[in-house]
Amino acid sequence: MAHLLSTSCTLYISSNKHDYKPLNQRATVLPSYFNLIASSSPLKNLVFQGKRSQRCCTTIQATALPVSKEAKTQPTSGANQTSNEASQTKRVMVIGGDGYCGWATALHLSKKGYEVAIVDSLVRRLFDQQLGLDSLTPISSIHNRIRRWKSLTGKTILLHIGDVCDFEFLSETFKSFEPDAVVHFGEQRSAPYSMIDRSRAVFTQNNNVIGTLNVLFAIKEFSDQCHLVKLGTMGEYGTPNIDIEEGFITITHNGRTDTLPYPKQASSFYHLSKVHDSNNIAFTCKAWGIRATDLNQGVVYGVRTDETAMHEELYNRFDYDGVFGTALNRFCVQAAVGHPLTVYGKGGQTRGYLDIRDTVQCVELAIANPAERGEFRVFNQFTEQFSVNELASLVTKAGEKLGLEVQTKSVPNPRVEAEEHYYNAKHTKLVELGLKPHLLSDSLLDSLLNFTIEFKDRIDTKQIMPSVSWRKIGAKPKTVAA
Amino acid sequence: MAHLLSTSCTLYISSNKHDYKPLNQRATVLPSYFNLIASSSPLKNLVFQGKRSQRCCTTIQATALPVSKEAKTQPTSGANQTSNEASQTKRVMVIGGDGYCGWATALHLSKKGYEVAIVDSLVRRLFDQQLGLDSLTPISSIHNRIRRWKSLTGKTILLHIGDVCDFEFLSETFKSFEPDAVVHFGEQRSAPYSMIDRSRAVFTQNNNVIGTLNVLFAIKEFSDQCHLVKLGTMGEYGTPNIDIEEGFITITHNGRTDTLPYPKQASSFYHLSKVHDSNNIAFTCKAWGIRATDLNQGVVYGVRTDETAMHEELYNRFDYDGVFGTALNRFCVQAAVGHPLTVYGKGGQTRGYLDIRDTVQCVELAIANPAERGEFRVFNQFTEQFSVNELASLVTKAGEKLGLEVQTKSVPNPRVEAEEHYYNAKHTKLVELGLKPHLLSDSLLDSLLNFTIEFKDRIDTKQIMPSVSWRKIGAKPKTVAA
Repeated sequence: MAHLLSTSCTLYISSNKHDYKPLNQRATVLPSYFNLIASSSPLKNLVFQGKRSQRCCTTIQATALPVSKEAKTQPTSGANQTSNEASQTKRVMVIGGDGYCGWATALHLSKKGYEVAIVDSLVRRLFDQQLGLDSLTPISSIHNRIRRWKSLTGKTILLHIGDVCDFEFLSETFKSFEPDAVVHFGEQRSAPYSMIDRSRAVFTQNNNVIGTLNVLFAIKEFSDQCHLVKLGTMGEYGTPNIDIEEGFITITHNGRTDTLPYPKQASSFYHLSKVHDSNNIAFTCKAWGIRATDLNQGVVYGVRTDETAMHEELYNRFDYDGVFGTALNRFCVQAAVGHPLTVYGKGGQTRGYLDIRDTVQCVELAIANPAERGEFRVFNQFTEQFSVNELASLVTKAGEKLGLEVQTKSVPNPRVEAEEHYYNAKHTKLVELGLKPHLLSDSLLDSLLNFTIEFKDRIDTKQIMPSVSWRKIGAKPKTVAA
Repeated sequence: MAHLLSTSCTLYISSNKHDYKPLNQRATVLPSYFNLIASSSPLKNLVFQGKRSQRCCTTIQATALPVSKEAKTQPTSGANQTSNEASQTKRVMVIGGDGYCGWATALHLSKKGYEVAIVDSLVRRLFDQQLGLDSLTPISSIHNRIRRWKSLTGKTILLHIGDVCDFEFLSETFKSFEPDAVVHFGEQRSAPYSMIDRSRAVFTQNNNVIGTLNVLFAIKEFSDQCHLVKLGTMGEYGTPNIDIEEGFITITHNGRTDTLPYPKQASSFYHLSKVHDSNNIAFTCKAWGIRATDLNQGVVYGVRTDETAMHEELYNRFDYDGVFGTALNRFCVQAAVGHPLTVYGKGGQTRGYLDIRDTVQCVELAIANPAERGEFRVFNQFTEQFSVNELASLVTKAGEKLGLEVQTKSVPNPRVEAEEHYYNAKHTKLVELGLKPHLLSDSLLDSLLNFTIEFKDRIDTKQIMPSVSWRKIGAKPKTVAA
């Protein structure tokens, strides 16, 4: 293992790491062309070109040294929601902090006075490369993002680049940062991606389940008071014909009563991976006293938060393609380029939705009001329910106001899901903690549409249609939409 | 890839197989000292010493060519339980067919006229080596077992040695054998093993979940009519305060009703892996039309079946150690050597139990009465409920009849589980299909005790006590009971 030390940054390279003992069946891989650029204060300008050996694997990790403990700042807000215990939460690790929700959250927490460390393998950027996709918004490198944030606000975000499936790497991040809370967004987060082919299905479940297991072991081993805030999904519940409760349901059966985990009916290998995570986390809360909040998040829309809007180098990613794009964001892009809004099947599919400004607010609320030791707490994190047809109708009206002619067409549903169903999901716990929702409004839709029109020239219309079929997924590796 | 061809056997070696595309994060490993002896008709005598390169991995696969389709035999029994459809099930792949339940099942099905192929990586034997454990009974190599079976009955059992997590290997077994049913025992099956350390927890979930995903993809790709008979566990349900149903429960909530998957509360990384499997399988039944039976099996006791009792080279393994041994078998060994029966905690832990002769009967019934296309069917596979204290009491009485002085002592419970709880689990579906239970009787206990006394000299008393703690599991690799 080679160590390259600068004044404030350790960048080390290890080869042929085997993580799964005793059978050593796994090695973390980053591709040979992956450039690691650590260029932000407190990181010095470093450029490293990782080489991948032909038969074995090279793991590249950039680990920023923690700032001194004395320099730690107190959270400056969230105070009206915080308990005494909460006010002790200062150091927050954001796993997956370079992603759509993760980046917005990392900035928001940094702004609020939390000391933030981003842990990310950047593999989400690799997926775009491999599938020939791109964010509607041009996004800066994580290093430039962090440097810009520092120059604008004076606030430091630490950066640890590596894979949480590599436990040696994860251990180092825990030992150096000593988090009070871990927000875990660091998973493969697209249902269609998990349904491309067998290798992506296996990757998704392996990556998500083992990554989360490693986070749980790291908390137990190194930071047993640390509060895990884990991103789950409303999709774990499926579409049952009864009301969806927040994580648990009280059942009376044959004259006896118990409160049990709410039955799950996930409908993709991605959604299933989140169900697996929830079950694993619940067990460790009981067996080890882990404190955990499982945020079953709905579909997120929007792109701007107060922080990402500060500078173009802080812009968040905005996905509209058939793999990573979600309904409302995709509809806005379609309206902007005059493409019909693509409703899958009958369009009666109803889900919970929320503005990305509420994602960051919810995560902050969860951190500021941590779970008790041994508590496995589940919050349904969304603010409103819509059917796909309702969303299409809202976008059509908003488009007309801007002079856009918006058509809607039904396309064959690539998924296996009910297209007309009962849906009533509870979502009161975050409101009780103080959530002030940004409901979907005309003005938000106007600004989203204007935003997509602003970046219209970057839209690749070939990426809009669904390219992944739940039923046709095969065992052979597939390249999507070449 | 080198091919070594004999008249009826293909044994091939491939190095550096990467299975998880696009990120190539996994390679299957067999240890360097692993001898592959393919010595049974239709296999020729072949001995291969696999060499493991220092940095990469060697996969060794012995694939027997299928016997010609013309030579296929009809099942000769199970006829009174079979439907017309069932009588078409002839070729059964038994994954994990070298293990405790798998070996007994493979012989039973072969005896009943099914054409059987065992698929096994033999890693269970490696676990014994690594942990310093051994079966009470001396067990022959899988090759000698199969050869002996052929010489005694004239029946051929095909053998494919390899890891179902290696999809290329699994694909070859499906393409050559073309199974009508797959019985999947091929998982890491010990709760304590999964709680030894982080690497075993990760191995268990990765091995079990990814292996089952691969089996599902192989069925979809190569044998879409094939019936999956998957071994789950009653431990998936945990110990709820309401009756346990068979897989599903009808819930009326806020005036609406739905039948949903029964809520699961598994209590080890092993049990959780089975819950993950169940959820994954249920999804593929819905999305792809897979036909599947999930056998939620109770604790199995006993050692002899009609077939394994035919010759000492057919003897089944009998585990009594703290990692792989289960309550009743372990108590019999303890009684035989004058060791106090070790009751964990209060001993009120109640579970479903069954005789291994009923395991093989249940699997046969499931195969003979396959699930419909798209059906995810769950059977609770046990015949009687006992608390640990009740079992200890039964063994004490049986021991006294044989002149053994049997003590019982409570030891600190290494697990995290309720020690006094309500437990009432339904188990009628297999009975409806024709199961004739072998209930736990004095005569069975007598014969089990006599059996353990027969092999008394092989008992290693150091292996009896629990060595794995649910709460103390750590991140560092641990060697158990050196």
